[in-house]
Amino acid sequence: MTLWSGRFAETTAAQMEQLNTSLGFDRRLYDEDITGSIAWARGLGRAGVLTEGETHEIVTGLETVRQEFATGTFAFRRTDEDIHTAVERRLTEIIGPLGGKLHTGRSRNDQVATDLRLYLLKTIDILHQQIAALQSALLDQAEAHVDVLMPGYTHLQQAQPILFSHWLGSFFWKFQRDRERLHDVARRAAALPLGAGALAGCPLPIDRQTLAAELGFASVAPNSLDAVADRDYVVEFLACAALLQVHLSNLAEDLIIWSSHEFGFIELDDAYATGSSLMPQKKNPDSLELLRGKSGRLAGALISLLTTLKGLPSSYNKDLQEDKEPLFDAIDTLALELPVAAGVIRTLRVNAERMQAALQDALLATDLADYLVRKGIPFRQSHHLVGRAIRQAEAAGLSLKQLDLASYQAIDPAFAADLYAVLDFRCSVQARAAEGGTAPVAVRAQLLQAREVLARGP
Amino acid sequence: MTLWSGRFAETTAAQMEQLNTSLGFDRRLYDEDITGSIAWARGLGRAGVLTEGETHEIVTGLETVRQEFATGTFAFRRTDEDIHTAVERRLTEIIGPLGGKLHTGRSRNDQVATDLRLYLLKTIDILHQQIAALQSALLDQAEAHVDVLMPGYTHLQQAQPILFSHWLGSFFWKFQRDRERLHDVARRAAALPLGAGALAGCPLPIDRQTLAAELGFASVAPNSLDAVADRDYVVEFLACAALLQVHLSNLAEDLIIWSSHEFGFIELDDAYATGSSLMPQKKNPDSLELLRGKSGRLAGALISLLTTLKGLPSSYNKDLQEDKEPLFDAIDTLALELPVAAGVIRTLRVNAERMQAALQDALLATDLADYLVRKGIPFRQSHHLVGRAIRQAEAAGLSLKQLDLASYQAIDPAFAADLYAVLDFRCSVQARAAEGGTAPVAVRAQLLQAREVLARGP
Amino acid sequence: MTLWSGRFAETTAAQMEQLNTSLGFDRRLYDEDITGSIAWARGLGRAGVLTEGETHEIVTGLETVRQEFATGTFAFRRTDEDIHTAVERRLTEIIGPLGGKLHTGRSRNDQVATDLRLYLLKTIDILHQQIAALQSALLDQAEAHVDVLMPGYTHLQQAQPILFSHWLGSFFWKFQRDRERLHDVARRAAALPLGAGALAGCPLPIDRQTLAAELGFASVAPNSLDAVADRDYVVEFLACAALLQVHLSNLAEDLIIWSSHEFGFIELDDAYATGSSLMPQKKNPDSLELLRGKSGRLAGALISLLTTLKGLPSSYNKDLQEDKEPLFDAIDTLALELPVAAGVIRTLRVNAERMQAALQDALLATDLADYLVRKGIPFRQSHHLVGRAIRQAEAAGLSLKQLDLASYQAIDPAFAADLYAVLDFRCSVQARAAEGGTAPVAVRAQLLQAREVLARGP
Amino acid sequence: MTLWSGRFAETTAAQMEQLNTSLGFDRRLYDEDITGSIAWARGLGRAGVLTEGETHEIVTGLETVRQEFATGTFAFRRTDEDIHTAVERRLTEIIGPLGGKLHTGRSRNDQVATDLRLYLLKTIDILHQQIAALQSALLDQAEAHVDVLMPGYTHLQQAQPILFSHWLGSFFWKFQRDRERLHDVARRAAALPLGAGALAGCPLPIDRQTLAAELGFASVAPNSLDAVADRDYVVEFLACAALLQVHLSNLAEDLIIWSSHEFGFIELDDAYATGSSLMPQKKNPDSLELLRGKSGRLAGALISLLTTLKGLPSSYNKDLQEDKEPLFDAIDTLALELPVAAGVIRTLRVNAERMQAALQDALLATDLADYLVRKGIPFRQSHHLVGRAIRQAEAAGLSLKQLDLASYQAIDPAFAADLYAVLDFRCSVQARAAEGGTAPVAVRAQLLQAREVLARGP
Repeated sequence: MTLWSGRFAETTAAQMEQLNTSLGFDRRLYDEDITGSIAWARGLGRAGVLTEGETHEIVTGLETVRQEFATGTFAFRRTDEDIHTAVERRLTEIIGPLGGKLHTGRSRNDQVATDLRLYLLKTIDILHQQIAALQSALLDQAEAHVDVLMPGYTHLQQAQPILFSHWLGSFFWKFQRDRERLHDVARRAAALPLGAGALAGCPLPIDRQTLAAELGFASVAPNSLDAVADRDYVVEFLACAALLQVHLSNLAEDLIIWSSHEFGFIELDDAYATGSSLMPQKKNPDSLELLRGKSGRLAGALISLLTTLKGLPSSYNKDLQEDKEPLFDAIDTLALELPVAAGVIRTLRVNAERMQAALQDALLATDLADYLVRKGIPFRQSHHLVGRAIRQAEAAGLSLKQLDLASYQAIDPAFAADLYAVLDFRCSVQARAAEGGTAPVAVRAQLLQAREVLARGP
Repeated sequence: MTLWSGRFAETTAAQMEQLNTSLGFDRRLYDEDITGSIAWARGLGRAGVLTEGETHEIVTGLETVRQEFATGTFAFRRTDEDIHTAVERRLTEIIGPLGGKLHTGRSRNDQVATDLRLYLLKTIDILHQQIAALQSALLDQAEAHVDVLMPGYTHLQQAQPILFSHWLGSFFWKFQRDRERLHDVARRAAALPLGAGALAGCPLPIDRQTLAAELGFASVAPNSLDAVADRDYVVEFLACAALLQVHLSNLAEDLIIWSSHEFGFIELDDAYATGSSLMPQKKNPDSLELLRGKSGRLAGALISLLTTLKGLPSSYNKDLQEDKEPLFDAIDTLALELPVAAGVIRTLRVNAERMQAALQDALLATDLADYLVRKGIPFRQSHHLVGRAIRQAEAAGLSLKQLDLASYQAIDPAFAADLYAVLDFRCSVQARAAEGGTAPVAVRAQLLQAREVLARGP
Repeated sequence: MTLWSGRFAETTAAQMEQLNTSLGFDRRLYDEDITGSIAWARGLGRAGVLTEGETHEIVTGLETVRQEFATGTFAFRRTDEDIHTAVERRLTEIIGPLGGKLHTGRSRNDQVATDLRLYLLKTIDILHQQIAALQSALLDQAEAHVDVLMPGYTHLQQAQPILFSHWLGSFFWKFQRDRERLHDVARRAAALPLGAGALAGCPLPIDRQTLAAELGFASVAPNSLDAVADRDYVVEFLACAALLQVHLSNLAEDLIIWSSHEFGFIELDDAYATGSSLMPQKKNPDSLELLRGKSGRLAGALISLLTTLKGLPSSYNKDLQEDKEPLFDAIDTLALELPVAAGVIRTLRVNAERMQAALQDALLATDLADYLVRKGIPFRQSHHLVGRAIRQAEAAGLSLKQLDLASYQAIDPAFAADLYAVLDFRCSVQARAAEGGTAPVAVRAQLLQAREVLARGP
Repeated sequence: MTLWSGRFAETTAAQMEQLNTSLGFDRRLYDEDITGSIAWARGLGRAGVLTEGETHEIVTGLETVRQEFATGTFAFRRTDEDIHTAVERRLTEIIGPLGGKLHTGRSRNDQVATDLRLYLLKTIDILHQQIAALQSALLDQAEAHVDVLMPGYTHLQQAQPILFSHWLGSFFWKFQRDRERLHDVARRAAALPLGAGALAGCPLPIDRQTLAAELGFASVAPNSLDAVADRDYVVEFLACAALLQVHLSNLAEDLIIWSSHEFGFIELDDAYATGSSLMPQKKNPDSLELLRGKSGRLAGALISLLTTLKGLPSSYNKDLQEDKEPLFDAIDTLALELPVAAGVIRTLRVNAERMQAALQDALLATDLADYLVRKGIPFRQSHHLVGRAIRQAEAAGLSLKQLDLASYQAIDPAFAADLYAVLDFRCSVQARAAEGGTAPVAVRAQLLQAREVLARGP
């Protein structure tokens, strides 16, 4: 017997039952469901709907049910349509018909919304810690390799020399924004739907402010129609998750390319690589490829919920049941990936020699143009003159350092012997000392700032 | 010990193992994996790599493994990285080191692509039957209600009278196109990757044409690099699935609106409806709402794979492991929904009286304009004149039939007493007798054509 | 001649030029580009790179260019690759080679990121006002119809009576969350990229804090590599936009259904409806259908950018040029829709009689169950008993009010004559007086709170 | 005055007009609109609705309108709601009130669906040619470099040696599948909607089969309700386009990585590269980055339409107007990209020496395992033994060739002096001679097959 069979003459078709059930995925909400129900029972008590004794008996019964879940002894029945039904059914088995009073003035519509928000808030706390661990690993490596030079790339072409620590720092800030976004989601998710009933509100003198405080919500959802259908917080979370996942994919892409034989800048620890069933020599960066590949999954989860919500009529529709699986999958995916990402960074072998050896003179072309600027030539013209020098050097198979002064002066007489002093990778890096730049002094300041931000929390 | 540990000094991190394993979802490919392996063993035999005896022993061993799966006695081990590893590991337990010869010249890259194609081909066959059952239910209902009149809508506004059977027929054709698309996917998916090795092809004299024929493939994938990375058929399938799902959502939307109290055109059988935990009177069309809501899921699956594939380098990358979960979820979702959709249609209670009672005179405005056209007035002007009549009638709170002749003639003298004969719903419907129209004669022809198409298969 | 042709021996292929150019869409950034360039010139002045006179001349020249844009006299050239090139080219035409000094220490990478953030911040201000106007229209209508009763729906089935003003209020809060989210986006977008150079930072003693203050940014992007590639704020904005758009689609769906002949609850003003080229009687809610249909566009814009960003290597890649068109299209779409949505609400004709007439007795079933609860019967059992009453009434073709007392008492003796007093729509509504409920007193408090929130800003 | 204003008392709000108009994008359908209208006029003539003279006059008038479009002299008016209105309006200006007869029995619903299908069919023809040109460029390069060796990669790690021509061939087949899919879309799109009216069919004795033949459609859409709302062909096309775009992104990713300084396998022609505004040395593969980055756009277009279609009620809804912009953008994007992709391939400088120099001994590990297999050791064990050899060589800083025989034999006595003969890149490639493999003989056969396929068409 379902919770609602009174009005029905026939039973549900078997295939309909399978399509309809949410127990396969909403069972993970058991703890939040019980917490919410206990708060509701107490609210009913305060409202005079339950006696003190009844309240006590229900709360105790619910704690027994929670214990059964915690110890793995809870037994689901085929007729348990969802976690709410399962809990109420078991409660009634334990404490008798009194269990049937728990659902007074409440609907599964406001109940499940409450459960889901509680679950999300808990999850965000865990993700905060996991992201912070990854950020911490990035800073550790940055501090350990603070002065290592490497080519900086744009368009995957060598652009200007940078510090490897500057690259590590760049990901710190991406993940910091992710944490700030999650913080905003949590802030907005902390509004209590309980007491909204099915759609129209609660006919009992329930004090929703007290209920909110008891459950750790910061405010009360101000409109019952909205409260039962609002899934904005899930969309918001999925958008944050998709973007965090994109950042993971960017991190992975750099490292995959850098761990190719041809780049050889880094090597993954064996613990984060796998081999081939056919090719004995292979050491593949599977961890990184999965961090990259799972972007699809998170983008899919986001679009899934947006599409489901699109064009729905007001208030609760069963379509909303489709909110949970993308959310849970997104959470599980991130919870699996973040420690792996942190582990990859923590155990990364950095090949500083290969990085340095890869630096090409051409990386210093901008410095050479800046040199001309200092001689009074407008930058646009300097840029052009250096471009000609590069073309000429390239045609002759020479680097900028190898091109002789006569050739430079044939291009423009402003070139002088002191130009060769500019062609130094470390000087180039040191020059970029404005805030946020790659100069050692600027990077050290940046890492300090990052440590403070990390200590402060989002 | 994994298949590839020889070259590795350290073991895999626990969290990396969890992220990396595909066994949770690829175990459902066991049957295809074994079928593919048996064909491969025979191919190795024909190529002289295995003796006849060895081939026989391996094939028999693999059939034993299959039997263990079929009877639920197969025991996975924690070290089974994926279904391929699990099968080979078990085979070797059963037949000894000879099992280690099976993977000669083969890679998991070509192996999994073969498994997945076989699985998809099997799945498409099942979906064909499920869609056909839904189409059949639509035709049954159409034949049972062939002459029932109802308002036809555009923009959810009453537009012109139609037959309810015409509406049912309209969905037949949508699903027919879905079946044709699935047929095209199957045609293109039937190209054999096996023999492509890891990426570069097979160094043994394997006859891939014979292999293809044995496994039921129509052709051989012509380039090994492409063969191991090609997931076009999965994208194609997911695109078809997403569109089929949109059609289900459209069907659901009509029926949800029509089963509202205000429309009241149809009533779901109790077997496909559910109730409310709070409101005793509710009978909710949950089945239809899930058919509508699950569109998000399928759109998400499609975008998930497209995003994963975007920007990947050539040949196999681990990212491709992300192909299976969206595919399997899409398949499972459709396999669950299609029988429910068919059941909903088959058991639908049609309220022909409510449909007929809902017909408003204004539905005949086009017929009235056509009447003026027959009197020689260009359609564009007729349209305008009838528009004025409508506005006048509306202002007076009258229907088109109630507006008197004098009023009509004040608008245009071409209106005559015979205009009232035009204002008949059944006449309106009968007039639309051109191929594909809603006239009973046209609908009957359409349903006949549909039956033939259905009998013929896609 | 492009900005960068010095190093190139050959010219660009014509089709490549077409693919590469961004001028078609980035020209709308002209104002931000000039504002940013003026700030940069002043920064160069403060850093001693430009003399006071040079700074003045460049700033004056840039203002002249701005004037040309504002008056529509600016003439683009075929060789203007993008808006930055166009502005610098024109500046140099006006002030001579000195114009070539403007780009010293700057790259188009940090320049375009600055432009785009400025543009987005301006846009969000405008959207705030447009959303507030829509919220205001909702509150106006709510206050004008505060006590109008209507059926509340879940699953599009009549559920419980509500106030129409409560429904209007429910959308106020959705749009309020949208505004809060936009506020968060603006907060995070207000970090200055200028001074990050191409990727490695700026080799000049530029004070980026002063630059930030001058341009109205709240902070300085702390890592140059990150600063030139960061498009998080665009993704965030598109996610907010997609969700706002979903809310518009939900509003539209309700109103489309309610403006059907069968519901008849509301009528669109002629100003927001259109007709049919064929059917003279049609008045179609095209405005609402477009508000619903454009959800696809915004979801597409979001997924477009996420997919583009996925798997990119660090720092600037040309793929990032694909950030602008989805952003601009999203902005334009919302800017077009929001005033229409506000207009629709403001001019809505509310048919209070039809709403009231649609109320069915069954809407009061929960009230009847609550009645039994007050007689001491646990809610779960009350629910079941009322369900039986409904089934019995339905079978007899009666409403709950029409079912006689004997029948009720046959179901359960707790039913008494006073049950009929419960069956009153207005009483039902008044009962739901807990915070956020549909009782007139609660709705009035809610609307007051909404007015305050609206006055306060996000 | 719009086509439908008769029934309306008020005019449309200005902002509503802007939101509603489709002229900005549907004007590109002018040619198809006129072609469809001419066929319709002739159909009306055959049906006796127009006299021969009237038909002639309308057809001539329409050809005049077409001429005006072709010569750029057509003048739109602010009141032209869409291309259909514009054409009819102008026709009536030219031939007088007779123009008002053209729309008899037709609706913009079946008209626009006809236009769009005609446009798509024309577009697909053009794309076929553009893709074929790209395929042809791939084959030209493959034939020109048929024996060039390079490392083959999986997981971006060197895997086995392959031929560069084999890599080129792999993309030929991807694009071939794209062409086959487009062919299927065209096949299904060629069903005539004209004659479906607004939704219910045509009340005139129009012969739709003749109409279909005249317009080049293969069949008649069999259900009018379906015909006016069916946008399956647009979704199908967008799915094909998104997948084709993914293939372009994969091609681009390989080439971007290979044109890095560190790989150095290829160099883009200057005509397909651009420079930097700041860094004089830069030569960036912008063409390829745009080919990669535009994947987002096409995935977005697909999801856009799927989301719009989701949950729509039957038959025409204004939401369907949102079908055109994603379609047109997808078409324009591909039409711009494909010639660039072909140009990039055609002008690619292939650095065969760098490719060959990059080959590492470890690429031959599988060959070494195969060698042990030939000595009778099961592959699984061979794989493990070679893995150990690799680990040992790596630890000693040696390549497989440099590891001495004693070390090999310490691992397994089956290793003998002839093992060194196996360690040859060209031998490795030649061994993979099974169909589809990378052996020169197999690649030559593959290229021959490709040429035939290309000559035959999809």
